[in-house]
Amino acid sequence: MAETLGPALPHDLQDKARNVLEKACKARTPIAVAESCTGGLLSALLTDIPGCSHIFERGFVTYSDQAKCDLLGVDRAIVDDCGAVSREVAIAMARGALDRAEADLALSITGFAGPPGEGDDGEEGLVHFACCSKGGSMTHLECHYGKEGRQGVRIAALNTALNLLEQEIGALA
Amino acid sequence: MAETLGPALPHDLQDKARNVLEKACKARTPIAVAESCTGGLLSALLTDIPGCSHIFERGFVTYSDQAKCDLLGVDRAIVDDCGAVSREVAIAMARGALDRAEADLALSITGFAGPPGEGDDGEEGLVHFACCSKGGSMTHLECHYGKEGRQGVRIAALNTALNLLEQEIGALA
Repeated sequence: MAETLGPALPHDLQDKARNVLEKACKARTPIAVAESCTGGLLSALLTDIPGCSHIFERGFVTYSDQAKCDLLGVDRAIVDDCGAVSREVAIAMARGALDRAEADLALSITGFAGPPGEGDDGEEGLVHFACCSKGGSMTHLECHYGKEGRQGVRIAALNTALNLLEQEIGALA
Repeated sequence: MAETLGPALPHDLQDKARNVLEKACKARTPIAVAESCTGGLLSALLTDIPGCSHIFERGFVTYSDQAKCDLLGVDRAIVDDCGAVSREVAIAMARGALDRAEADLALSITGFAGPPGEGDDGEEGLVHFACCSKGGSMTHLECHYGKEGRQGVRIAALNTALNLLEQEIGALA
């Protein structure tokens, strides 16, 4: 355990990440992720476990709207019409990541971690997730974590994302 | 401070990240990063400070060699000839990130965090950094942190990366 992020993130998240990676390795399912509000934390968790981090293929930290469009091919009209934190954008991010990675499964996260005031005028704690597979499955989740603060929302989102990945890897097996 | 990653990473790293972001905001210098061995942690740090995280424009978590080539335009021949952990690849990653972002400054990190055995047969703790600006500057750093363990090397690399960013933002001002 000394060889992991250690005190960096809650232990249950590290255990979950290890579990996801071990299942992904066993199922030979390379994973890609596209993150907005979590800003690279999910990628960091999924590359922190020695011995199975190679199953994490690549990550896109698309913090700006332009980055979502450029790197993931999200249609600017969808961002403008639905907002960057929406079911539609989450799904487009996951599809874009899957198309642009050597992965069998791609998960996206877009949300308002808060606090408000950085151009985010949405609901604090609202986070959308999407997870799609090469086989064609697509799962969407909408979570309302409430005003848990930036750290609280980010941690809660990581938890949900890892649960979703585990579920989807299980469904592929 | 309760609104940051809190216990997630050493406090001095958070303070450094805040300092870098504040200077980048003041200098109006959007930042992009391309990470390999740090796996998204630098992006996570640079999006964790409310009020100035918008100056972080996007991040590339190019964990696999293929991701470095696909997402950053690194020439496969450079990876094959010099190795993924090399001055040449670090520089190509930084240039590629700058060309593929709406940023004025791009920093890359590629290294062996260890432990060995995942196809990494290089020197544990060896990390290359490159930082380039739209103005044409390019700085390269080669660090030998030694066998500090995965967590130790990753934390040391974040520290170096933040120092380098601060220095380069200062040079632009």
